[in-house]
Amino acid sequence: MNNKKNKLVVVGVGHVGSAVLNTALSPGIFSEIVTIDKIKEVAEGEALDSTHTTPFTYNPNTYIHSGDYEECTDAKVIIVAAGPSIGGDIEDRTVLAKTNTSVIEDVMSSIVKYTKDAVIILITNPLDTMVYYAQNFFGYPKEKIFGTGTTLDSSRLKRTIANKYGVDPKDVTGYMLGEHGNTAFPAWSLLNIQGITSDNFDKYFKAEEPLDRDKIAEETVDVAYRVNKLKGFTSSGIAMAACRLAKAVVLNEHSILPVSTTLEGEYGITDIALSLPCIISENGVEKRLDVPLTPDEVKKLKASAESIKSTIEVAGFEK
Amino acid sequence: MNNKKNKLVVVGVGHVGSAVLNTALSPGIFSEIVTIDKIKEVAEGEALDSTHTTPFTYNPNTYIHSGDYEECTDAKVIIVAAGPSIGGDIEDRTVLAKTNTSVIEDVMSSIVKYTKDAVIILITNPLDTMVYYAQNFFGYPKEKIFGTGTTLDSSRLKRTIANKYGVDPKDVTGYMLGEHGNTAFPAWSLLNIQGITSDNFDKYFKAEEPLDRDKIAEETVDVAYRVNKLKGFTSSGIAMAACRLAKAVVLNEHSILPVSTTLEGEYGITDIALSLPCIISENGVEKRLDVPLTPDEVKKLKASAESIKSTIEVAGFEK
Amino acid sequence: MNNKKNKLVVVGVGHVGSAVLNTALSPGIFSEIVTIDKIKEVAEGEALDSTHTTPFTYNPNTYIHSGDYEECTDAKVIIVAAGPSIGGDIEDRTVLAKTNTSVIEDVMSSIVKYTKDAVIILITNPLDTMVYYAQNFFGYPKEKIFGTGTTLDSSRLKRTIANKYGVDPKDVTGYMLGEHGNTAFPAWSLLNIQGITSDNFDKYFKAEEPLDRDKIAEETVDVAYRVNKLKGFTSSGIAMAACRLAKAVVLNEHSILPVSTTLEGEYGITDIALSLPCIISENGVEKRLDVPLTPDEVKKLKASAESIKSTIEVAGFEK
Amino acid sequence: MNNKKNKLVVVGVGHVGSAVLNTALSPGIFSEIVTIDKIKEVAEGEALDSTHTTPFTYNPNTYIHSGDYEECTDAKVIIVAAGPSIGGDIEDRTVLAKTNTSVIEDVMSSIVKYTKDAVIILITNPLDTMVYYAQNFFGYPKEKIFGTGTTLDSSRLKRTIANKYGVDPKDVTGYMLGEHGNTAFPAWSLLNIQGITSDNFDKYFKAEEPLDRDKIAEETVDVAYRVNKLKGFTSSGIAMAACRLAKAVVLNEHSILPVSTTLEGEYGITDIALSLPCIISENGVEKRLDVPLTPDEVKKLKASAESIKSTIEVAGFEK
Repeated sequence: MNNKKNKLVVVGVGHVGSAVLNTALSPGIFSEIVTIDKIKEVAEGEALDSTHTTPFTYNPNTYIHSGDYEECTDAKVIIVAAGPSIGGDIEDRTVLAKTNTSVIEDVMSSIVKYTKDAVIILITNPLDTMVYYAQNFFGYPKEKIFGTGTTLDSSRLKRTIANKYGVDPKDVTGYMLGEHGNTAFPAWSLLNIQGITSDNFDKYFKAEEPLDRDKIAEETVDVAYRVNKLKGFTSSGIAMAACRLAKAVVLNEHSILPVSTTLEGEYGITDIALSLPCIISENGVEKRLDVPLTPDEVKKLKASAESIKSTIEVAGFEK
Repeated sequence: MNNKKNKLVVVGVGHVGSAVLNTALSPGIFSEIVTIDKIKEVAEGEALDSTHTTPFTYNPNTYIHSGDYEECTDAKVIIVAAGPSIGGDIEDRTVLAKTNTSVIEDVMSSIVKYTKDAVIILITNPLDTMVYYAQNFFGYPKEKIFGTGTTLDSSRLKRTIANKYGVDPKDVTGYMLGEHGNTAFPAWSLLNIQGITSDNFDKYFKAEEPLDRDKIAEETVDVAYRVNKLKGFTSSGIAMAACRLAKAVVLNEHSILPVSTTLEGEYGITDIALSLPCIISENGVEKRLDVPLTPDEVKKLKASAESIKSTIEVAGFEK
Repeated sequence: MNNKKNKLVVVGVGHVGSAVLNTALSPGIFSEIVTIDKIKEVAEGEALDSTHTTPFTYNPNTYIHSGDYEECTDAKVIIVAAGPSIGGDIEDRTVLAKTNTSVIEDVMSSIVKYTKDAVIILITNPLDTMVYYAQNFFGYPKEKIFGTGTTLDSSRLKRTIANKYGVDPKDVTGYMLGEHGNTAFPAWSLLNIQGITSDNFDKYFKAEEPLDRDKIAEETVDVAYRVNKLKGFTSSGIAMAACRLAKAVVLNEHSILPVSTTLEGEYGITDIALSLPCIISENGVEKRLDVPLTPDEVKKLKASAESIKSTIEVAGFEK
Repeated sequence: MNNKKNKLVVVGVGHVGSAVLNTALSPGIFSEIVTIDKIKEVAEGEALDSTHTTPFTYNPNTYIHSGDYEECTDAKVIIVAAGPSIGGDIEDRTVLAKTNTSVIEDVMSSIVKYTKDAVIILITNPLDTMVYYAQNFFGYPKEKIFGTGTTLDSSRLKRTIANKYGVDPKDVTGYMLGEHGNTAFPAWSLLNIQGITSDNFDKYFKAEEPLDRDKIAEETVDVAYRVNKLKGFTSSGIAMAACRLAKAVVLNEHSILPVSTTLEGEYGITDIALSLPCIISENGVEKRLDVPLTPDEVKKLKASAESIKSTIEVAGFEK
């Protein structure tokens, strides 16, 4: 059971972390939100600015402030958005992996000094590599750490399909699986609009062009780059993904969302973190689902695992 | 386009209508809510009581009051919960059909005097018969009238499955189709938990007993009777169903929900109202989906249609 | 600190308790809600009906079920709406006091078996007498019990003034003080519309008639009877009051609301429970404010205390 | 009456406008949100990123996209956050005034081509000067344009006082009046914590130091600079202020908020825009309240007006 108070700690308040802070205020589930950043001024400034939202009617009197890692002691959820991101800050994924490995080392070793109870939601990229590192090298309970993973990629997939067929994206069920990033792929065999599978989309819904699965898969991966290119970074979508997961934890919803965790033999994949649908409760990952996939999808998942593996090797973690 | 102000009229404020009123307040989408009841005291009392919720922080200053049918003139949504219900008030469905036919006649002929723009959401039972009557005998635009139908039955189905397998019911996709009531049936061929179809439930989720489709179908229909028997009536679930639909209308969400409308040849069924998944927008029913069903499911749908037909005949509408 | 999980127990699910249950669902702050009633069928029926709201998008997967008092063990908040109410059930206040004394005795002695940590919010009437009893005869931490008190009466006062002057009632600051019921009175000296005191209302806001303080005081007390007479009971307003208080507890808001607690010398009043503005936090009543009142207001408060005292005497509690 | 659809247009999506976009999504009152920016890529990028929040449960299927000014045609609310801001972009207020005058000229002359029905909420600085310009030089209905004004400054004042005395800032009533910026001042004579005026704060609430009105006034003005210095700009607070105002418009709340409009003789001030408490409805500013002020407060208001006048003169508008 997770009986810590309704406290959220946001580690890293750049574009993404500050969006997480402000998105986390709106559902009104946290009584306290703390920002931590290595640039203390930014942590304080973001917290201070956000406190000015609390006097308005409709908003809870959440106690928002900046602080140090000891604030994790009684936190229920910790969202880690620390470190530079691809595109905005660093162009090379290898450089990013090495840089953020040291960021995560610092963050995780600081957190474990104060708690092993909080559910930790990782956003830092390269996401799956960072999850693998955080989950396996700091003695933190494995089920209490996961990465946003393809939760955002799946949201983008749903939006793309919803746009095409003129329906509410909440009516689209399905995920992108594997890596958060380039090798993520839509699990078409599971995807449906209110039970109607993708081979029937064009029969039941109007669209300008017939379904082109490859095109949609490509667009879904590309849209991250498009947002990056257009506004310089991504923030709104990923912040909402993290906060959706946080809400599932705080309210113990047992919601199924595709988050990144270290696999233990599923589809023959071991010792690599990637996204599969998981049941999220107050305990973190209640269960990882090795959902039924077609041979082609398993192949793509393995390819995605290989891609992550190469990044893990580049990062060169040592126990 | 539905450019009427954000005004809801609730016709009939018994157990269900008063629950609708209070449930409609919480999302904060309506600037005005009006109650109409043939017992003017009750309409006034329910409205008055609800006005005492508005001074609290977090609550919008919705203008809540009782009134006459002329209040429909500038309404965006009208929810009709008028008439007695089975169980609490009347035991015999034939008697109920006849009684509520005259209720709906009164309600619809009153509404059409003032508007043909509002989206009308019917709750009055026997639901499908009342929808058939309201949609076809008063000159109201057909796409702007529908019944809550199996929206509630489907919610019950999801809850039953979610309970069994320990997941968030929002992760269960699927519907009860056909009649709102005894002959409704789960469309198992469309049902899934985040893409996993029912034949795989027991493999991927823990449950005390293996899936028994007939038992779940039965329980889903029976739970209405169980609530009725336990508390004397049903209100919370149906009120939420109606308000979910109202929100889809006000926010033009294009959400797919199984509502009751008069079929026009789907599955060979004509001139009978029953529930199929429909796309709900600010215009009401944007599209009715004749979703792919198995021969057995089509058979059940036709049986359900026959059952409704017999009630329609009992009611004996005349053009 | 109140680190219990986000669990609410509702004791007594008649008109008021069932409204509390449904109102408590909407802010999405509770992960679990349990209903307890001496009529087990009703507790189960209300819970069951409410579970059918959870599958809808926008609604959290709150775990709603009926149960026994042992469910209080890990509750954060307990709302007590048990016992008959005046008007609907019992006409005579003396009879009501005696009847509900035994209800509260049963409820409190059952709760203390399982917890002394939860914040208990009492609704049962005669409210102040029941608060006095619950706070002083069962060894429960005093700061963790309070009654909704004049929170509802104050809301009605704000609505009345807001109606008169055409403003948002959230912009009206002020309270009814003293007894929840007949002898409650508006503390005009504290009341204001965004800082404008009542002597200036007619200058700054339009109204059909000039301010008549006595008339408004009377109307505010009478409106409870009016609702009772019109719909047979009151439920929506009181449920929202209790849930507003619960939210202040769960989110540790330190909000000031006029709740009923046993006074300890304020204004020379001791050993009588009545409503004064209190700071509400996760600990319950953080502080009771003996706000500055005019001599006339103190006189009314003492008269109100006398009225409550006579009811307390009638109830005849013995330590 | 404002019967346009529930559509928001955000003009200018820099730090502030993008925060407005994301803050506007959470209350779920808009069915459509459009971004306009002279850098079309940014408008598109911010909209695109935000669309990825909509597939999550709890979020409405708001139609979010970028566009041109013709999107204003059927908008209910337009929030203008265009132009550079002080601190981040431009250090000199005179330069800022001249630069943003041409921004507002462009924005307003573009808007009036398509609508005179939408309520326009201005955020662009120097705020009061921009409001004066927008309200008086483009033939737009005056009551339908106002600036966020001291809504944010007032929120900061409330937060400062709430922090000092350990209460919910929603319990602090009061405003900063005059200019949005340096010469804004707290109207202490109207300020209260649930009816308790400031001379009694130290008696009723605990604080480390006694109330120092000048220090609090100074801190409230300075905190804007502090946030600017710490994080480089301000965004969260101002976005919430604008969205609170938008909600009052959409739900026709008649809420009183201190917004900036051109005075017409109040306190002897004419032809200068500054903030006074106003009743906000679907029509925009329903009424401007020349609230009772002490002679000293009137003096400060006039000084503030003079300060704004000099900026207006610098801007050099010509009819």
